[in-house]
Amino acid sequence: MAVYTEIPDEELDAFMAGYDLGPVQSLKGIAEGVENSNYLMVTQKGQFILTLYEKRVDPADLPFFLGLMEHLAGKGLRCPLPVHDKKGEALNRLAGRPAAIITFLTGLGVRRPRAEHCAAVGDALARLHLAGEGFGLRRKNALSVTGWRPLYEQCNGRADEIQAGLGSEIEHELAYAEKNWPSGALPEGVIHADLFQDNVFFLGGKLSGLIDFYFACNDMLAYDVAICINAWCFEPDGSLNITKARALLSAYRAVRPFTSVEIAALPLLARGSALRFLLTRLYDWLTVPEGALVVPKDPMEYYRKLRFHRSVTDASAYGLDA
Amino acid sequence: MAVYTEIPDEELDAFMAGYDLGPVQSLKGIAEGVENSNYLMVTQKGQFILTLYEKRVDPADLPFFLGLMEHLAGKGLRCPLPVHDKKGEALNRLAGRPAAIITFLTGLGVRRPRAEHCAAVGDALARLHLAGEGFGLRRKNALSVTGWRPLYEQCNGRADEIQAGLGSEIEHELAYAEKNWPSGALPEGVIHADLFQDNVFFLGGKLSGLIDFYFACNDMLAYDVAICINAWCFEPDGSLNITKARALLSAYRAVRPFTSVEIAALPLLARGSALRFLLTRLYDWLTVPEGALVVPKDPMEYYRKLRFHRSVTDASAYGLDA
Repeated sequence: MAVYTEIPDEELDAFMAGYDLGPVQSLKGIAEGVENSNYLMVTQKGQFILTLYEKRVDPADLPFFLGLMEHLAGKGLRCPLPVHDKKGEALNRLAGRPAAIITFLTGLGVRRPRAEHCAAVGDALARLHLAGEGFGLRRKNALSVTGWRPLYEQCNGRADEIQAGLGSEIEHELAYAEKNWPSGALPEGVIHADLFQDNVFFLGGKLSGLIDFYFACNDMLAYDVAICINAWCFEPDGSLNITKARALLSAYRAVRPFTSVEIAALPLLARGSALRFLLTRLYDWLTVPEGALVVPKDPMEYYRKLRFHRSVTDASAYGLDA
Repeated sequence: MAVYTEIPDEELDAFMAGYDLGPVQSLKGIAEGVENSNYLMVTQKGQFILTLYEKRVDPADLPFFLGLMEHLAGKGLRCPLPVHDKKGEALNRLAGRPAAIITFLTGLGVRRPRAEHCAAVGDALARLHLAGEGFGLRRKNALSVTGWRPLYEQCNGRADEIQAGLGSEIEHELAYAEKNWPSGALPEGVIHADLFQDNVFFLGGKLSGLIDFYFACNDMLAYDVAICINAWCFEPDGSLNITKARALLSAYRAVRPFTSVEIAALPLLARGSALRFLLTRLYDWLTVPEGALVVPKDPMEYYRKLRFHRSVTDASAYGLDA
């Protein structure tokens, strides 16, 4: 949620001259995406999102992200489509950064999802997983199990500043995940990996599109489902809403059936996914620079979710029958 | 430059039901205005700005601000127009705050104004001053000379944290301004009081509109001119660009001629205006909360401008002939 880079007037003019979109009529920094600078741009051709990729994004990953959006949109998934310039390029440079223009998607994120929203997310996630088949590029999940311990080590043992005993509990969880993570044993494909409320748009009660593919990667498809359970199916008091989880999972399997191995692994994947977001939030919490444009999210929300998943014995706890 | 308030889904629906704008198709927090939460809203009727007034704005001032925009737009000035709801109200409540919808103005702020931009600002400022005549409401300038010392006292003598000796220099300037400020001696009217680059839109090289009237008040018209000289006519190295100042002042006087008293007072007004922005920036610099969504601006930029104006003997230094 930030705008980092100001764009010099002349550079914007030169950049836009490369596109067939007409002169810029309006350009407003928007509070969307934590990793990049995003602007809502109006030209004669309509509304677009102009993104400047900041230093947390590896430029080598950009062809994957932009190519994926194009691939998915081509398969009928409603997601932003990169705009090509007059030379056919989707990726350019502006204000010293890699930059791209993508189409504007109407719709609003919901703040308090109901079961029908969760069902729509399950349906869309399964369609995304199917649409991802055949995409030619690959990207490793830098935030999967092997990335968690290095991330935790960057917190320099400061976890107990948030809550006494948190550090040793994270150590225990890391060891458990590293020992039991079902890498290679489950169906894999392209996952969104960050399908939170901000990234799913609704319009008139219907899901109108998915955005922000900048964590997308190749990983276990059921891990993406586990991320969505954590993101969509818990109440503000920290309890799982099994009606929402059942709605999400039923809608998903109606499009892409789960394998029995995926069903058996779901509690572990949910527990690992909670650890992943606990760790990134912990890191952000401890390292947010003074005067930063971001308000870090509470890591303890994911600690509570993690503890719930640890208490679960099988996927029926999420309303999923074998 | 911030979005402070998240809007619950149901509250937005209920709020919008009061307007004749159709359902919301998109709502994005934008980095515009430091005092309020601003959203770019798209409905079937087009694009609008939804503003939630945060605690730094006195709700008692809102009828002045909204009424002024309406008055000025009615006189042909290009500025946002408050949208009335079905009951005829421009001001409502949303997410526990006063809220209003205003029309969307196309155009972009310039980052590095050239002399022709300064001329356009001078012309628009004079037209604003003339258009303000006959507006029925009044608002005292809370940030005029009598407000400066209380503001400085809230900095608790910490000015020297920025630069050694800054505190005593500010004391000297306060005493000088309080003794010499020409209150009551110059033509008064409605002033914008914050006509910085962010608040002036250009499109295709032409000025397309003025925004952000949330510092507008009744005060000396020439004080508004002095603010604009500070905001538009200095180079990044801190020197006055007399070509830009002459362009701004000539364009202004072609629409609204200066009185001889205004011309004589210009160096003092520019010096006072530099002190005013030095003080507000100093206060923001010293009091910015950790993790805040704002990046405070450098107070010393205005210290350097203040020193320049102190060296000036008459308005010819700004390219203004008597």
